Formats: sequence, structure tokens, C-alpha cells
Amino acid sequence: MIRRRRDIGKNKAALTAKTEIKVRFSEVDSMQIVWHGEYVRYFEDGREAFGLMYPGIGYMDFYANGYTAPIVDLQLQYLRPLTMNETATVEIRYIETEAAKLCFEYEIRRNTDGEIAVRGSSVQVFIDSEGNMCLNNPSFFEEWKRKWLKR
Amino acid sequence: MIRRRRDIGKNKAALTAKTEIKVRFSEVDSMQIVWHGEYVRYFEDGREAFGLMYPGIGYMDFYANGYTAPIVDLQLQYLRPLTMNETATVEIRYIETEAAKLCFEYEIRRNTDGEIAVRGSSVQVFIDSEGNMCLNNPSFFEEWKRKWLKR
Amino acid sequence: MIRRRRDIGKNKAALTAKTEIKVRFSEVDSMQIVWHGEYVRYFEDGREAFGLMYPGIGYMDFYANGYTAPIVDLQLQYLRPLTMNETATVEIRYIETEAAKLCFEYEIRRNTDGEIAVRGSSVQVFIDSEGNMCLNNPSFFEEWKRKWLKR
Amino acid sequence: MIRRRRDIGKNKAALTAKTEIKVRFSEVDSMQIVWHGEYVRYFEDGREAFGLMYPGIGYMDFYANGYTAPIVDLQLQYLRPLTMNETATVEIRYIETEAAKLCFEYEIRRNTDGEIAVRGSSVQVFIDSEGNMCLNNPSFFEEWKRKWLKR
Repeated sequence: MIRRRRDIGKNKAALTAKTEIKVRFSEVDSMQIVWHGEYVRYFEDGREAFGLMYPGIGYMDFYANGYTAPIVDLQLQYLRPLTMNETATVEIRYIETEAAKLCFEYEIRRNTDGEIAVRGSSVQVFIDSEGNMCLNNPSFFEEWKRKWLKR
Repeated sequence: MIRRRRDIGKNKAALTAKTEIKVRFSEVDSMQIVWHGEYVRYFEDGREAFGLMYPGIGYMDFYANGYTAPIVDLQLQYLRPLTMNETATVEIRYIETEAAKLCFEYEIRRNTDGEIAVRGSSVQVFIDSEGNMCLNNPSFFEEWKRKWLKR
Repeated sequence: MIRRRRDIGKNKAALTAKTEIKVRFSEVDSMQIVWHGEYVRYFEDGREAFGLMYPGIGYMDFYANGYTAPIVDLQLQYLRPLTMNETATVEIRYIETEAAKLCFEYEIRRNTDGEIAVRGSSVQVFIDSEGNMCLNNPSFFEEWKRKWLKR
Repeated sequence: MIRRRRDIGKNKAALTAKTEIKVRFSEVDSMQIVWHGEYVRYFEDGREAFGLMYPGIGYMDFYANGYTAPIVDLQLQYLRPLTMNETATVEIRYIETEAAKLCFEYEIRRNTDGEIAVRGSSVQVFIDSEGNMCLNNPSFFEEWKRKWLKR
């Protein structure tokens, strides 16, 4: 059931962003580790940081252009726990695809030892203002690609 | 990136449980649909219902036997949104494996039209009281298997 | 800092509703008790149950009438903890006021021993479609009062 | 129902700490504002920042000394909304009391205009390792007071 995943570090040219998170008391479960669902928020923090670094594909940009970009696939692999008061770094990487999708991969590393706590991926599609899924990329996303995906 | 997934309905003999959820106001995001991270809780509701139907592998049973069973893999596919005030049914299915793992698949169906909103899977491993991952199933889990997995 | 609070049981004629909640694994913190912030959701479950019993003042009714009703005051007193797997009953009571406000009081009782775990109160105001706070009750709320607040 | 509250700025000698928060997508509700329950986490961020600035009364210190300090009273007043992508500053202030309690007041100000979004207060008590509430301050808390509460 565990999907083999190409190492996130391989594609040197890819767009990446990093952000730091700190474990909150409310995020730790009764096993004294971060509850597995909280990492979905950490991934979101990663997308937020990515949007700041490569402007044009944040939630607000989607809205402004009449689109939403809901997540249709989310995968998480938990390798090591994060515990109370720990800090970690979320690294997010844009994965280019021909399809009308927005794909990211994630690695969350513990700041103490640099080890990967969690890695994962997300896929978003584009929904237009009439609620239909776009079969081709919206023009604002094509423009974003032209701007940021240099060969 | 999307993993092909055997239809959850195929294996007739499998152990399944169902529970109903109702969308809360706090679970809906600014797109007026359930925030994608909330489904992780719905999956947990499914495991809870499963534990009640086939006693012996709930969180408390793990504790009582000196183990924890953290999630190491979680996958979600979002097919249709759930919206405010909607009810849905979480169906969880036990997936038998030779490995020392506890595997489930999930389907969340909207009660209005019976369509699948989200499906997914989870994998748990067993950690003993010294913090080591078990390479073989703990005996209480083997007993649970003998009891519930009839041929 | 602790406000004396008239006993919720005193006003016999008041409108009340009850709903049952079950503690989720994800709601329990590292002290093995429900994290104090989760009770805000339980209160919301109470308001939801109240809206079903006395229709006309649910979130959807506000929207349909062009209003929102954000919470402006929230108070919680924690008397006894709820723990893993416990069930409890949320009782919500409508508190009549002359002001253009919607006021509730809450009691969450443990089902095991009937003791109060948490009690509290909330105050909501009405915001019209132009974003202004209403100084008088919206007409749909006045109608609701006429219907349900019998002398 | 709304308690009059001495201005948080009055007591010049009081211990305070500040931390900045950024609204996450997942924290915004269908009214496009931060869901009222999320502020409980922001208050927690405030306590965390306070613990870093005046070490000795963080969650870990309680544990290390054999105590927990659950919240027994929580009050929030919502004055103005926070919206998507907004940043705000949580200011927390220690409130000295004779009782065996740990009391804080909070103000969350929007960074855009400096206006108060939410203010509130929390009260914690001390529970010893046998589960009893302390009628007198634990010695480690008395020491903390002697260290930080200079006249």
C-alpha cells in the first residue's frame, strides 16, 4: 500500500519553498506525539510559503480569477514522530505535470536531527466559477508557469 | 500520483463497519465545503466504529497490551465535496496482510445521493513499550485475527 | 475572574435541547483529557441540536435572510475532565434578552456519573448583508421568538 | 453576560509577552472569517511565548515537577474579525493573584490597523501527581514568582 516515491531532492531545477513550524500543545495526542491529522495543516503551511515565494497561485489568486483549486489527492507517509515543543521545517516542491493539475510534494524534517518526520504529496484541480472541473489549465496558471518554470 | 485502488466492495468476506457523520459548521472552509483535513477525523470515526464492532484492536486495547499503533501511511482521494449540514456514511474495511501492520480502506458516501465523497486508506504499525517497531504481530493482534478472520 | 452563573436548571420555561457527543482520539491531549479548546465544538454541536429542535435560527436560516450571527462572547468553565472514549451530553438553553442578541448557556455532563464537565455561555449578534451590526432584532428572529417563546 | 474587564494596558509592571500569528486557510470559516474556536489556539500560542520569555511555567516545567495545570476558566470577547491571510499579534499578560492559580489576560490585535480583534482571559489550577487540586501554590511556582515578580 506504500507507494514508492522518487526522492524529493533529485530534480534540482524544481521550485521549492521552506517554512518552519513549531509543535503546539493542542497538536500533540495522548501518545505524546503530534496527531497524524495535524500534518495536513503543516502541508498547508508549506503551500502558503510556496505561494509567497512564487506569487500567483495562492488561494486569493484563484478567487480573483474566478477559480477554486480543491485538493483531490493527499498522501502522507509518517516516518518519525514530532513531539511537544519541537520545531520542524516543511519543504514543499512543485511537481510539473502536463495535466490541468497543481501537484506538490512535501518533506517535513525535524530541526533537532534533520531526519524526515513526514513526507507526502497533494494534487489540486481547477474548478471554474460554474463548478466545472477544468480540462485545460486556466490562463492565469499558464502564465504563472511561463514565468516561473524556466528551462 | 494517484494509486489505483481495488474496489472496496469486491472482497465480500472482509470485515467492515459503518458510522454516520454530520458536517459541523467549524469543518466547512471558505469555499463552503468541508476542509480536506477534516476527513482524517472522519476516518478516525470509522476506526472507532470498527473497534466497537470487532473488539480487541481499539486504542485502549493497544495501551492495555503495552503497544501503540501509530499511523504510518495515509491516503485520501477527494471525489465530491461535502457541504454544510450534510450527513454522510463512513464505511471502513479491514484489509488483511501478512506484514505486522493494521490496514484499512475507507469510503465516505453522501447520504443524499449515495455518491462517494472521499475514499482512502491507512496503515498502522505496532510499537512496543520500549519504542521499537514490531516485526511480528503482537500476540493480542494474532488472537484478534484468529477470532475475527474466519475463512 | 469567574463569573457567578445562575443555575441552568432554574428557569423551567426556557427552551433547551440536548445532544450526545463521544470523545474522539484526536480530541484528547497529552494529559489524557479532552483538550480545552474542543469544547467550543461541543457547544457548536449544542447549537446545531437546538436549531433542529426549534427551527428558524440555524446558520442556514441566517444566510437565507441575509444575516450572519457571529459569536461575540464565549465563556467556559471547566469543572471535571472528559477522557478518551467517554460519552457526554451537551445541554443548551436559550436565554431570553431584550437586546438584539442571541444568548445561550451550556452544560456538558459526563454520561458515566452525570457530573458536569464543562459549562459556559455564548452571545451572538446579528450582522446584516452590508456588514453592519443590527441594533434591533431582524424580523425573522422576532418571528422565531413569537413562535417559540410562549408565556 | 459580558464582563467588564480592566484595560490590559493599565498595570505597567505586569509581565507580558507577544507573538505573531498568521491566519491559515483551514482556520477560516464559511463566513470568510476566522472560526471563533481557533482563537483558543492563538491564546495557547500566547502562553507558549510567555513561557519562553519567563521560563519555568511551561507545560514541560509542570510535568518535570509532577504537576499539570489544566485550564478551568476561559473567556473570549470577539470585537472584530480576522480574515484570510491576515497577521495579528497576540499579547498575553500575567495577572497576579493570591490564590493557587495561574491567570492570564490576552489581546489579539490586527497588524493592519492595530485594532483589537479578540480579548480574553484564562485561569489554570495546579493538579498534583495524585490528581488532587493544589490549595497552595506548588513550590516551583512560588520560586518562579519570586524570580519574576519584582516590586
